[in-house]
Amino acid sequence: MSEKRIEDIDENFQTAEIGGKKLKFKKAQEKPFAMSGFAWYGKEHKFCRLPEAILPQTNDGVKSLAWYTSGGMLRFRTDSPVIAIKAKLLHKNTMKHMPNSGSAGFDLYLGTGENKKFVKMSAPEVGSDSIEELLVDNLPKYIREWTINFPLYNGIKELSIGLAPECALEKPRQFAIEKPLLFYGSSITQGGCASRPGNAYFHMIARKLDANLINLGFSGSGRGEPAIAEAIASLELSAFIMDYDHNAPTIEHLIATHEKFFRIIRKKRPSLPVIFVSRCDYDRNFSESEERIAVIKQTYLNALSEGDKNVYFINGKILFGRKDRDACTVDGCHPNDIGFYRMAKHIWPVVKKALSS
Amino acid sequence: MSEKRIEDIDENFQTAEIGGKKLKFKKAQEKPFAMSGFAWYGKEHKFCRLPEAILPQTNDGVKSLAWYTSGGMLRFRTDSPVIAIKAKLLHKNTMKHMPNSGSAGFDLYLGTGENKKFVKMSAPEVGSDSIEELLVDNLPKYIREWTINFPLYNGIKELSIGLAPECALEKPRQFAIEKPLLFYGSSITQGGCASRPGNAYFHMIARKLDANLINLGFSGSGRGEPAIAEAIASLELSAFIMDYDHNAPTIEHLIATHEKFFRIIRKKRPSLPVIFVSRCDYDRNFSESEERIAVIKQTYLNALSEGDKNVYFINGKILFGRKDRDACTVDGCHPNDIGFYRMAKHIWPVVKKALSS
Repeated sequence: MSEKRIEDIDENFQTAEIGGKKLKFKKAQEKPFAMSGFAWYGKEHKFCRLPEAILPQTNDGVKSLAWYTSGGMLRFRTDSPVIAIKAKLLHKNTMKHMPNSGSAGFDLYLGTGENKKFVKMSAPEVGSDSIEELLVDNLPKYIREWTINFPLYNGIKELSIGLAPECALEKPRQFAIEKPLLFYGSSITQGGCASRPGNAYFHMIARKLDANLINLGFSGSGRGEPAIAEAIASLELSAFIMDYDHNAPTIEHLIATHEKFFRIIRKKRPSLPVIFVSRCDYDRNFSESEERIAVIKQTYLNALSEGDKNVYFINGKILFGRKDRDACTVDGCHPNDIGFYRMAKHIWPVVKKALSS
Repeated sequence: MSEKRIEDIDENFQTAEIGGKKLKFKKAQEKPFAMSGFAWYGKEHKFCRLPEAILPQTNDGVKSLAWYTSGGMLRFRTDSPVIAIKAKLLHKNTMKHMPNSGSAGFDLYLGTGENKKFVKMSAPEVGSDSIEELLVDNLPKYIREWTINFPLYNGIKELSIGLAPECALEKPRQFAIEKPLLFYGSSITQGGCASRPGNAYFHMIARKLDANLINLGFSGSGRGEPAIAEAIASLELSAFIMDYDHNAPTIEHLIATHEKFFRIIRKKRPSLPVIFVSRCDYDRNFSESEERIAVIKQTYLNALSEGDKNVYFINGKILFGRKDRDACTVDGCHPNDIGFYRMAKHIWPVVKKALSS
């Protein structure tokens, strides 16, 4: 039985050489690749985390950060002994407290269901906005499932995946939880400052649950605009993690927006599990953190008192655990990988409970 | 009783303004500041981790990396309500898998003994080799002890600390373990890729034991040269953590150098506790890791069989724990903060035991 070469059945494959290997490159947007994290991609065909039409109703931060690809994933099954990546990103900036591996890098996981394991990270050199690299090579030829997580603090202009000229390429298995978990919030929600995308808390949680995910964390800019709540309410989700606290510039702003944001979503999605989380960097300013917790908890208590059975509350104070809490951030605010690991550990069981009830 | 102004008693103080605050800056090298991590500083007055005279006998990597300040600390007690830092570093490079906060940053800890807690990180902007920043401000005026950890992958040309014009400045308390722990090894030993210096495993271990420390990790270049063993043997240490494995380019090189390196030190320091550690990123290549473990363990077993009571062996396989091992590195090799935290957790009790026996 003769195998068909993929370039014969798919004109979208482009030939290129990397590291002396002849590869066929295919765009991330094309089937059977399964791309996720961009809820409006099907309509708008853009690597944008929000519908473009609502951007004018959001703050300037969201307007640009919506184009950052936090939460994006590309999944596929192949028996190719080699996998390469070619990417052109939105910008060349590097932050001083987060490496390119996290802000502009991709990381590759191998496996299915709840058993996906990190294999390889690929990031642009400092000062570059491009990646062209072999991710894996010389693998025995059998079908495996791969997941590639997208950059947390950069955007994608072009992304294509290179495979051996003769290989099988199939769509991945469905997620156990196909409707996405949606995370809304701040820079921390967006993944700052994980060392690589897969170590951001929302990826850890989604991976452990084998769940699809959408990230709407906006660095410094998660301010609770109604337009974003409306956009979230328009989606079919399995759970909504409302990690909104940090970027409300004042307590008054939080009071004015927190419950209102929730109500917009609750009105359209009466049975959607909603998990309220207060900020993880509680220790930074105890008294202000407590004031904010009170506001967030009030939204929760009000819902409860109205008979809402699908609300949950996580006090951010617990998220970094008890021991060595001061090891959990890079700068007193943004979790490093220890902080994110502990956040995932504490938030995950609540999401799991919410999904099963 | 009138307080003396420090600039009246110390001409080394230089006045400067940062953030609208008038401050007196004093060089890190000057008493009562206690600088540590540079065992030959007293003789050579250079921020070098090795004696300059032996550099020609080391490989090219060590020749330049000896000037990187991993393990360096500055400690002092002051009642100054403000602390500022001014630093000029060796270079402006940023790595793609380690942020400036770790490679070129300083982090400030507050407290004494085993209870030092992270307060503030300060790092140069990407593309810069300078820092000038307020670390803390508006503190109530009472005496506190501060520790500043030095950059892991950059060197110091100049470093000075700014304090309020009228303040007390005293030497810090002695370490509980005043003779340093010395760590020798690879890029991982040097602290790659911690998000900030204080989260590198050797700082975590030394902090938990209230121990002085010297870091002789040399990225890609810890190859077991006899000259370095001689230099180590010349020092009064409380324990020697021989984390030498990774940078031996081949098994043959490791066989030819590992035990020899240990013997040079053991000959001059018959009762120094020596802890052999094999590489933490065991999973990267199981079979090669096992071969290397066998070599390292043989050094240990030979010493034991000769009646050496001061040797310890840690199999690197255990260092990342059991669960979510794949979360422990940024790139499959270098620990992120999760990996370092787990390394510290496993190595610390052995060091403690070694120190108490």
